[in-house]
Order: sequence, then C-alpha cells, then structure tokens
Amino acid sequence: MAGNERLYIVTYDIGDQKRWRRVFKVMEAYGRWLQFSVFQCRLTPRRRAALGARLDGIIKPSEDHVLIIDIGPADAVDPRVESLGRPFESIKREAVVV
Amino acid sequence: MAGNERLYIVTYDIGDQKRWRRVFKVMEAYGRWLQFSVFQCRLTPRRRAALGARLDGIIKPSEDHVLIIDIGPADAVDPRVESLGRPFESIKREAVVV
Repeated sequence: MAGNERLYIVTYDIGDQKRWRRVFKVMEAYGRWLQFSVFQCRLTPRRRAALGARLDGIIKPSEDHVLIIDIGPADAVDPRVESLGRPFESIKREAVVV
Repeated sequence: MAGNERLYIVTYDIGDQKRWRRVFKVMEAYGRWLQFSVFQCRLTPRRRAALGARLDGIIKPSEDHVLIIDIGPADAVDPRVESLGRPFESIKREAVVV
C-alpha cells in the first residue's frame, strides 16, 4: 500500500474565515501542518481523490483557491524541497486517519 | 538556456510585516503571484541559487519560514498541480528580470 503513496503540498487562500477553518480541519485529517495555509500530505491515490473531493465541497470558487502540488513518490530519498528558517522533514509514514 | 529551467512553488510565513514586504518584492522579481504568500517561479539553476541567497538574506530564521518546492522541468507538459477555484497555468517562458 505504502508503495503508491505520494507527497503533496497543499496551499490555500480562502476568502471567508468559516470556510478557512473547515479547510484547515480537513487538512489536519489528511496531512501535517507546515505554514499558515500550507500542509504536507502523504496520500494513496484513493486518499488523494478523497481529499480533492472534500476540498471541492467546501470552497467557493469565486473567492477561494486551493493548490494541490504533487512532489513525488513518498519514499523518494530526497523530495526536492528547500526549507529556509526551519528544517523540512517529509512524512515518513501514512498520517493517522482521523 | 531555457532547457534547464525548472518550475518552483515558493511559499512563505513571515513574522514581520516589513520583512514580508521585502520577501514579496523579491518574489515579484523572480516569479508570478499565485496566492497570498505563494509564488510560482521558472528558474535556471543560477537564478534558483540567486533567489535562495536573496531570501536567506532577508528572513529571520527564528520567526520566518520559506519553502522552495521544485515541481519539475519547466517545459514538462503537465506539472503535477491541481488547482481548485481557478485555473493553474505554468509559466511558459522566463519571467522578465526586474
């Protein structure tokens, strides 16, 4: 199962505080917090699709914007991310499903 | 020259408004705005290194955090980015140097 997991960076601009909190809660269930509106997720194709559907159900396209960036296989030794200010550690195993 | 350009997503959390504006101005010179604290850049290795050095010279590591995410060769047909809310278009040519 873990072999088909990929790492994703998810960033979002949400125009409304209530929707922002809903997006934040969904993201907490799927990944690990990195920055104010940025999460890292390690996902199978199935969970990746589920996350997209969850977010799609929350956001208002005219006011909100979400980017889901695939940065490669989860167990690649070196995801191509440079972190300035504090270290970046890729998620080593699947996040616990809440 | 263009053949060795790669696309990057840069996200930042900056603890101070003055430094945030300085980071924003540098990012405007190197890429294209995507979200509140998120830019897309198309960079040669030389400009990629220059950007890292510029940001490194501005941020305060104890309060700020910058992620520079390599999403692949700039001319790849399909950068693996899904955008919800509005379309994502990868930069088709090198940004004008300001």
